Amino acid sequence: MKVNGAPTRSIWAEPEQNLVWIIDQTRLPHAFTSHALASLDDAVLAIRTMQVRGAPLIGATAAYGVALAMLADPGTASLERACAALAATRPTAVNLRWALERMRDHLLPLSDDARIDAAWREAARIADEDVATNAAIGAHGAALLGDLQQRLGRTLNVMTHCNAGWLATVDWGTALAPLYRLHDRGVPLHVWVSETRPRNQGLLTAWELREHGVPHAVVADNAAGHLLQRGRVDAVIVGADRVTRRGDVCNKIGTYMKALAAREADVPFYAALPGSTIDWHADDGCADIPIEERGGDEVRLVQGLTPRGDVCATRLLGSSSQVANPAFDVTPARLVTALITERGVCRPDAASLAALYGR
Amino acid sequence: MKVNGAPTRSIWAEPEQNLVWIIDQTRLPHAFTSHALASLDDAVLAIRTMQVRGAPLIGATAAYGVALAMLADPGTASLERACAALAATRPTAVNLRWALERMRDHLLPLSDDARIDAAWREAARIADEDVATNAAIGAHGAALLGDLQQRLGRTLNVMTHCNAGWLATVDWGTALAPLYRLHDRGVPLHVWVSETRPRNQGLLTAWELREHGVPHAVVADNAAGHLLQRGRVDAVIVGADRVTRRGDVCNKIGTYMKALAAREADVPFYAALPGSTIDWHADDGCADIPIEERGGDEVRLVQGLTPRGDVCATRLLGSSSQVANPAFDVTPARLVTALITERGVCRPDAASLAALYGR
Repeated sequence: MKVNGAPTRSIWAEPEQNLVWIIDQTRLPHAFTSHALASLDDAVLAIRTMQVRGAPLIGATAAYGVALAMLADPGTASLERACAALAATRPTAVNLRWALERMRDHLLPLSDDARIDAAWREAARIADEDVATNAAIGAHGAALLGDLQQRLGRTLNVMTHCNAGWLATVDWGTALAPLYRLHDRGVPLHVWVSETRPRNQGLLTAWELREHGVPHAVVADNAAGHLLQRGRVDAVIVGADRVTRRGDVCNKIGTYMKALAAREADVPFYAALPGSTIDWHADDGCADIPIEERGGDEVRLVQGLTPRGDVCATRLLGSSSQVANPAFDVTPARLVTALITERGVCRPDAASLAALYGR
Repeated sequence: MKVNGAPTRSIWAEPEQNLVWIIDQTRLPHAFTSHALASLDDAVLAIRTMQVRGAPLIGATAAYGVALAMLADPGTASLERACAALAATRPTAVNLRWALERMRDHLLPLSDDARIDAAWREAARIADEDVATNAAIGAHGAALLGDLQQRLGRTLNVMTHCNAGWLATVDWGTALAPLYRLHDRGVPLHVWVSETRPRNQGLLTAWELREHGVPHAVVADNAAGHLLQRGRVDAVIVGADRVTRRGDVCNKIGTYMKALAAREADVPFYAALPGSTIDWHADDGCADIPIEERGGDEVRLVQGLTPRGDVCATRLLGSSSQVANPAFDVTPARLVTALITERGVCRPDAASLAALYGR
């Protein structure tokens, strides 16, 4: 998508410079800066500190992290060490493990000298496939939401949560891909953006939508139930960090309450995701998906701009204040109207998902 | 309750100095400062800018605001003007109107010379009655929650929202009054405090609980559904800004989603309130209660401490960013387990409320 009119991806490689470039998302929307990764450690740090975030982008970054590790040492021990270090950065997103397994399976059979080029190529394929996948999610989702807008015959009000836009993927996004499609087709659209405390990734969504010209309004996370109850939301669409084979959706903390409020208001609730987000080994989302507990300073501090225009963290609570900070929650399949995937729209149950993906 | 060990109310009068003192809650929990109100305009501003907030405290402040107006001009036109100006400060809380009607009814029949003293006395009665009312709410709520803790035989985990503590009333609080009682009785208790964006009144609750020594943890509002889903909450207790005669509860934005998540988890959801919060003219909370839409800068800016320790507002979003900021939502009576009032615990329906209050 575009930034200041220039087509931009969230991650891009310069193999001839031995560098991978990312957008430092910890400074967005307050400052737009790109940042070079030159080593495995850089990639690990970028994922752990959430300079990159969003399940698909984490996967692509991990793949490039393996390529950077191969550059330093293409041996098998180095490959295994890189995969282990990258896998340990974030526990919830399944794309991370999927991308690492794919890199490992691709590189292990090769000789050491062949691994560097192969790693760059495979990481680039993962990134390019992500773009194609998200474009397909966008097409399927736009068909679904476009029908809804036509039935309503007025501006479609869609609510989203967190950032499942192009910044969370390599391009297009998952939940936002259908909205960009609809907007580009001229369908009248308004997006409710939940700020998504504690890290306020909703502000990334607002930044993306603004750069692309999509009408939207930011609300406190607390406002979602009221807006749904009062008929001001026609559909909820979110991304996913992991989906079980039965269709339970693990996504950013706060998603579950939006799903409850959507059901209560009889408003459809969609999750948009690529097949790589499905954990075919997980049945029950609440039992089988580990929920990352992140550091308390994410709650105690809020990042913003000072009156002078510097990016800074403002303290809400003293460092000795007790906080809890679960980063994700699980929305049971029964609250999900449908899953929007690159292969089409699917009911959130084991049979439908298995049929769609030929498992 | 106590601040640094000293018994403190949230509002107190010095009639001999022609002053009313409040705690400037816009600076809490970062700075504890008291602030003198010397005129009707001061009182109007204190309510509108939320230096005082919380339905019962707004009522008491409005009553003292009438007293300050009488001091300047005890005439009937002045009384009517004062009541109108104070009533216009906040549209949702019913205690405000209740307190103003009581002051007006009390003062109108009196001669101008009698009004000043009578206004001070009546405002003080409203404040003292609030303390007694909240103590009674505390006793009834503590009995209910104490029984629950005994059945569980372990630390009771209670979730609250916003600040319905002593800072929101004259003393004790509504939702927190039972928790202070239980804690003082030695009942093991842990409180989940939802930060309550956009104004983060949960931080006031955390400050109160900390000053009183009650174990607690602050969480992002988004975490409530997850904590309820995973069995980490035994009861939810909130205050109310207005309750209809049928038991619909209007309270701080975000309350409704907590009630949905509590029902889903089969966890009791209580609202604690004085009779003055009941709007006997309102039936359907969604149809009959106006929801205040507050300024967008509450969403765009967050107040906290700079690294240097100054209280400052950090900007999350530019001033041209579209935001929406509904301040309250309505939890339908069917999601409310019981209302905890100064007259006892009551089912949230018209017959039970009417019987309890002899209407």
